[in-house]
Amino acid sequence: MTTVIEKTNVKEQAKLAQKASKELGLLSTEEKNAALNTIADHLEVRSNDILTANEADLKNGREAGYDAAYMDRLALDQDRVKDFAEGLRQVAKLEDPAGEVTDEWTLDNGLNVQTVRVPLGVIGMIYEARPNVTADATGLALKSGNAIVLKGGSSAINSNRKIVEVIKEALENTVISSDAVQFIDSTDRSATQELFTMKEHIDVLIPRGGGKLIQAVVNNATVPVLETGVGNCHIYIDEHADAKKAFAILVNAKTDRPAVCNAAETVIIHEAFLAKHKDELIDILNENNISVFGDQKAVELIPNAEAAEEDHWANEFLSLDIAMKIVSDVNEAIAHIDEYGTKHSEAIVTEDEKTAKRFKGLVDAAAIYQNASTRFTDGSALGFGAEIGISTQKLHARGPMGLPALTTIKYVMTGDGQVR
Amino acid sequence: MTTVIEKTNVKEQAKLAQKASKELGLLSTEEKNAALNTIADHLEVRSNDILTANEADLKNGREAGYDAAYMDRLALDQDRVKDFAEGLRQVAKLEDPAGEVTDEWTLDNGLNVQTVRVPLGVIGMIYEARPNVTADATGLALKSGNAIVLKGGSSAINSNRKIVEVIKEALENTVISSDAVQFIDSTDRSATQELFTMKEHIDVLIPRGGGKLIQAVVNNATVPVLETGVGNCHIYIDEHADAKKAFAILVNAKTDRPAVCNAAETVIIHEAFLAKHKDELIDILNENNISVFGDQKAVELIPNAEAAEEDHWANEFLSLDIAMKIVSDVNEAIAHIDEYGTKHSEAIVTEDEKTAKRFKGLVDAAAIYQNASTRFTDGSALGFGAEIGISTQKLHARGPMGLPALTTIKYVMTGDGQVR
Repeated sequence: MTTVIEKTNVKEQAKLAQKASKELGLLSTEEKNAALNTIADHLEVRSNDILTANEADLKNGREAGYDAAYMDRLALDQDRVKDFAEGLRQVAKLEDPAGEVTDEWTLDNGLNVQTVRVPLGVIGMIYEARPNVTADATGLALKSGNAIVLKGGSSAINSNRKIVEVIKEALENTVISSDAVQFIDSTDRSATQELFTMKEHIDVLIPRGGGKLIQAVVNNATVPVLETGVGNCHIYIDEHADAKKAFAILVNAKTDRPAVCNAAETVIIHEAFLAKHKDELIDILNENNISVFGDQKAVELIPNAEAAEEDHWANEFLSLDIAMKIVSDVNEAIAHIDEYGTKHSEAIVTEDEKTAKRFKGLVDAAAIYQNASTRFTDGSALGFGAEIGISTQKLHARGPMGLPALTTIKYVMTGDGQVR
Repeated sequence: MTTVIEKTNVKEQAKLAQKASKELGLLSTEEKNAALNTIADHLEVRSNDILTANEADLKNGREAGYDAAYMDRLALDQDRVKDFAEGLRQVAKLEDPAGEVTDEWTLDNGLNVQTVRVPLGVIGMIYEARPNVTADATGLALKSGNAIVLKGGSSAINSNRKIVEVIKEALENTVISSDAVQFIDSTDRSATQELFTMKEHIDVLIPRGGGKLIQAVVNNATVPVLETGVGNCHIYIDEHADAKKAFAILVNAKTDRPAVCNAAETVIIHEAFLAKHKDELIDILNENNISVFGDQKAVELIPNAEAAEEDHWANEFLSLDIAMKIVSDVNEAIAHIDEYGTKHSEAIVTEDEKTAKRFKGLVDAAAIYQNASTRFTDGSALGFGAEIGISTQKLHARGPMGLPALTTIKYVMTGDGQVR
């Protein structure tokens, strides 16, 4: 297949999705829910075909020498496919944001004004290894009345192609056009880049994956982007911290799931707290196999701590490593977070309300915690039921994004001849 | 001044604004309101200085041969400066969006979750001739707790420089740092382009002006953009329209203020309506000096109508010209709006609720009207008090944008040691 033909296809596919999105926006909640349940059933029935396709990806992955963590993200089994299906059934049970009248008033002249939630239209999903995103994102898009264009990672192309094939077959048995789900069946980067500028046919791009992918989309797309996920999160343990809470939060935020975006990557400790609780801290780090890359003071005080380099402050470890900075007040902590934070989740441990207020007011992030673990920045932990990602941008949606993030509003005005 | 020095300045200015924005976000509503009133007083006291500066711009404008409409947008007088001041006092009276707790719940484990409205941070305003934007945008930014970087059009640079000088002098008498208002004192395009990519220091760019300016920002900025304003608005007169309402709406939407974005640019008429009301329509067009550029049928039926070219369908006239298309059903009207609309304001005139529902559901625009003039898409008409622009994009804010559009939310979590 030549690049020229692929280019044409991407645009044609986006147009088909756009066309399908129009009628999708008019469907009832019941019709959309029935479609999601039908897709779920088909995924379960066709799980063996999906696993066969996945085996081809795994074989390519082994030959390419991907590491164990990557292979784990890529791998499917019967249980994981059942999870896709169950996920779709859960989304079917969520409240439908589309059609909700969010505000209504009547002008003095009698003109009725409503703001109504409506689907965004066409969502472009650009993602990496995990094939579950194919099913999850499709479910959230359709439930909120949107069509979706899927561009997954090359390493999962066989799995993704088969999952989409099953989804489209399922849609043939529903009122939703199978055109509402488009799969860019290409490993060519130019196909992804084409999506970046397809403003006329795609309403929003959502990148899911590593920082490099997200930055490529943010920096090159003229289609509006919902920026998700990189979390260089900090725990600041204040002079007035309760030590028990501080250590519980530190251990949980660092070790519960080190590879996720809401895990802690740097601990900032007030020198007065450290003076009182140094030995406890050292024990806790040892017990939990946490390795420290510290500033000068930390290296002096913590056995085995190595000197932190710029990269340690600036990037996620996604492991049991942690960066450690010792400060003499909250302002120093805030300045460090300002410089290195990714506006995801930031925590202060303190019993002093004035300090907490300053931290909460001045730190610029999607989620600010006082005396709790950053791990709660998560759609399911907060009770949203499902999330399309965690927004680290400020516009449109911030923090965990549920179904409403996939909608916009429309002013609907009803009159009987009003003029100005 | 060399380009290199200017480049440094833009970045330094953005950094100063960012620094000022931090403390601005902590101020009380009363402190911000007092500052706005102080600025208003200073603008009135210094109106002669502002008019002297404006005279320099007008002289340059006359020498450059700008047309009368352009010169009118540029020109200030005592009344217009009084309007700036009055506008700031009105903004001081509006509800402060910052700090509003928009939602609050408690998880089963006792963790309290609040979503709190917070300022975006730093707003980059890129605009054309009208010097009133300098004062208006500054007022809205400060009221919502944001710093602002102003880049006005070259033709108004003397007026804008003086207005900002007065604003900054006024701020010296308030708790707001004068750094919160930055004026890019340059007519060099590279200064504007630098703002496009200054993601680290500017949170959002708002372009106000013609379509060309807006597209340049949208297509080149990596800083998130709030797209405003171009309105290629349509009035669809259905088969089941009430003729009296239809003509009143057509005349109002076309002639009340032809140069504004919510004016009508194309009228789409059902052939059955035209068959019944042709003579009335011709009289009304004549009485109101409306010139028609029509499709083939319109040219045949309407005396003096010229044949419409692509440009007439696609762009705003901003004059008493109108494009006219004759259709045989509502779907044809919707398809035309889909192709040429700018997602601003679209109207249907009909007494048939089923047709109205289809139009309201399928037309993709910020504001959809049934039996009312598109002229109501306006912050003051809708009761917002003031607007920073009319968003034609779908993300973040859609339609007339009041103060809440200049805010985002922050999840603020308060616990007593919760971990997952």
